Amino acid sequence: MGDKRELTVELGERSYPIYIGEGILEDAGKLFVQHGISIKSPIMIVSDVAVAKHHLPLLQSVLEEAGYSIATAIVPSGEGSKSLSVFEDLVGQALKAGLDRKSTIVALGGGVVGDLAGYVAASYMRGIKFVQVPTTILAHDSSVGGKVAVNHPLAKNIIGAFHQPELVLYDLNTLQTLPPRDVSAGLSEVVKHGLIWDAEFVTWCDENAERLLALDPDALGYALYKGCSVKAAVVSRDERENDLRAILNLGHTIGHALEAVAGYGELLHGEAISIGMVGSARLAVRLGAPEDVYTVTKHVLRRVGLPTKLPAHLDTNAIMDAMMHDKKFQEGTMVFIVPVAIGQVEINKSVSSALVREIVEELKREE
Amino acid sequence: MGDKRELTVELGERSYPIYIGEGILEDAGKLFVQHGISIKSPIMIVSDVAVAKHHLPLLQSVLEEAGYSIATAIVPSGEGSKSLSVFEDLVGQALKAGLDRKSTIVALGGGVVGDLAGYVAASYMRGIKFVQVPTTILAHDSSVGGKVAVNHPLAKNIIGAFHQPELVLYDLNTLQTLPPRDVSAGLSEVVKHGLIWDAEFVTWCDENAERLLALDPDALGYALYKGCSVKAAVVSRDERENDLRAILNLGHTIGHALEAVAGYGELLHGEAISIGMVGSARLAVRLGAPEDVYTVTKHVLRRVGLPTKLPAHLDTNAIMDAMMHDKKFQEGTMVFIVPVAIGQVEINKSVSSALVREIVEELKREE
Ligand SMILES: NC(=O)c1ccc[n+]([C@@H]2O[C@H](COP(=O)([O-])OP(=O)(O)OC[C@H]3O[C@@H](n4cnc5c(N)ncnc54)[C@H](O)[C@@H]3O)[C@@H](O)[C@H]2O)c1
Ligand SMILES: NC(=O)c1ccc[n+]([C@@H]2O[C@H](COP(=O)([O-])OP(=O)(O)OC[C@H]3O[C@@H](n4cnc5c(N)ncnc54)[C@H](O)[C@@H]3O)[C@@H](O)[C@H]2O)c1
Ligand SMILES: [Zn+2]
Ligand SMILES: [Zn+2]
Repeated sequence: MGDKRELTVELGERSYPIYIGEGILEDAGKLFVQHGISIKSPIMIVSDVAVAKHHLPLLQSVLEEAGYSIATAIVPSGEGSKSLSVFEDLVGQALKAGLDRKSTIVALGGGVVGDLAGYVAASYMRGIKFVQVPTTILAHDSSVGGKVAVNHPLAKNIIGAFHQPELVLYDLNTLQTLPPRDVSAGLSEVVKHGLIWDAEFVTWCDENAERLLALDPDALGYALYKGCSVKAAVVSRDERENDLRAILNLGHTIGHALEAVAGYGELLHGEAISIGMVGSARLAVRLGAPEDVYTVTKHVLRRVGLPTKLPAHLDTNAIMDAMMHDKKFQEGTMVFIVPVAIGQVEINKSVSSALVREIVEELKREE
Repeated sequence: MGDKRELTVELGERSYPIYIGEGILEDAGKLFVQHGISIKSPIMIVSDVAVAKHHLPLLQSVLEEAGYSIATAIVPSGEGSKSLSVFEDLVGQALKAGLDRKSTIVALGGGVVGDLAGYVAASYMRGIKFVQVPTTILAHDSSVGGKVAVNHPLAKNIIGAFHQPELVLYDLNTLQTLPPRDVSAGLSEVVKHGLIWDAEFVTWCDENAERLLALDPDALGYALYKGCSVKAAVVSRDERENDLRAILNLGHTIGHALEAVAGYGELLHGEAISIGMVGSARLAVRLGAPEDVYTVTKHVLRRVGLPTKLPAHLDTNAIMDAMMHDKKFQEGTMVFIVPVAIGQVEINKSVSSALVREIVEELKREE
């Protein structure tokens, strides 16, 4: 059995701990009590169908043994559940279960469940407590930082709040049931955290790619610890995305455009930003960064099983339009997060749209 | 023309000013600029049909003259608009109008528009700026303190946030078009602010009742200034309702139960809490307060045109059930805000439900 790791997201009075390790869920009762989750008010666990099947029984029984009164609410798996109608339904279930101002909502699942349940916690009675129990690798990203949201038919994540959890319980055992494609997609954000902050960790990802893909608990525990640490460091310095936090968007300008144009579903989020990060690296080299920014970025992403080539059938004009909609070109220039070296990025506010178009074309010819 | 008054809601870095006076809207452009509302990003004014007809053209033209780019969104008048579906529609309109993270939402209307538009501002892109332009007397209460919300089919105000406005512009001219019943209902919360905090102001309300009902600008300006001041003082001491803020609920335990049992619509909110405040005063006397707590409370409420008798056809059991649902009896006792003298209340956590039942019966026999 691997090490248990703990780290703290430093946010003054909103600081909270993240526990990472095998079998963390067995200790959920003790950890809840230790971190001030009231035993007197009912708790609601929100999960999705696929996750609940594998992991709800354990969490529920551990918490019940610790004396908590538990209600459960299961939503369909997938992005479609991040809607206002599912949100309204969850509020109704919370009311029927008698949740009060001292109650807590627990998100057991990936980023979809975390974002959705977190927004319920942010809004129910104007805000109640919230615990994240991430079950995907991608959720190392979404469970840290307090961004919660649902989608509007016209835009993703447009309705939301900043609502920090009380604690995050990351049990590596839950990851063993993840579909392989979601493993690679989640590693995309892990690699991103290396690329923006920590060159040594990028090398480590390269050297340990096989162990990560095989879900080796020691490797996984270390990678998630590092990924969460970078995210926590950035968020601590800029909780509400006034400046620094923007660097977390490396690869996301192109990535979001690809998700929109491909239609949500063809490309997973992690896959789209993998291609986006290769694009940013190409852009960086064109703007004067050393060649290895591109070669290393592409290499490490391929090592963890991610696509680096833009599907040729996606229309370049449509991709450019989606980007303009996303970030707003201003007189032919746009804002981009651009690497200056592996482990270091800058915010470039005057990248020409003509250059971005060339990069998109090049990404289609990528091997 | 009456005096212009200004006061500040003290909330550290979230402090904001309230301007009260005749013709304040003429200065809206200047005040917006002065308080940091960006001229570069589009603004959306939210209003309801009845209010927009009378007061939108002026506000819109003043802001456009000041250089703002304005979108407008008009919702049906009445509590029904405080729903998630209207909320979703407003988010869509904000997206289509191109509102960005630097944009501002302006609520032009009563408490319904303020609560609804405020929740849109709290949630859109995880929170943008917000200005309150209250047009009812009741909204002196709802526009101060940062509580914003929509209703769920199963419960009022259950979905919301704390989101403080940048400023509040209270133009007495807009109140001239208010229906008389809404004038009295709004004065109910004005009197409440006297009853919980300021005995002299209760006397003043009694002496100036005719002027208030006639919408005399000088009297109205003073009353709203005092009402806002009390609310601001309480909220400054307890922004998130941990303790003190509960005193603002004087009359609301019974009042909410009456609204629910009568069916929303038969009794306006201000009318229901008027009856509730008479009930609290009766309760106070039974618990040892001087007799004048009851006589003065009832007298001043009648002076401003409010009902003080509980409609006899409302079922006592149903009212008791609604109260239990609202606040939860604990072993036969419940929490009540109880006056100890005119201008002073306490939070009593062990009022027996049997006594409350007697009071409800007495309220039906009130003259
Ligand atoms: N809040 C943030 O800061 C932030 C950051 C990044 C992404 N996100 C959001 O996260 C979402 C994507 O997250 P995700 O990739 O975790 O998606 P997800 O929650 O939909 O999970 C992916 C799939 O894996 C299944 N699954 C999850 N855990 C499993 C397990 N342990 N075993 C078996 N199956 C499992 C789910 O049912 C789902 O079908 C997006 O909505 C995105 O907007 C939010
Ligand atoms: N957020 C808070 O702290 C808080 C406090 C108290 C009440 N509230 C909420 O406030 C709402 C009630 O507020 P309200 O009484 O202002 O209701 P409202 O906004 O519905 O206004 C009452 C009626 O008057 C009309 N109206 C408004 N201004 C007018 C004007 N100047 N001229 C002509 N007609 C006008 C409206 O169209 C509406 O039909 C409730 O939803 C309640 O929950 C919130
Ligand atoms: Zn991402
Ligand atoms: Zn009220």
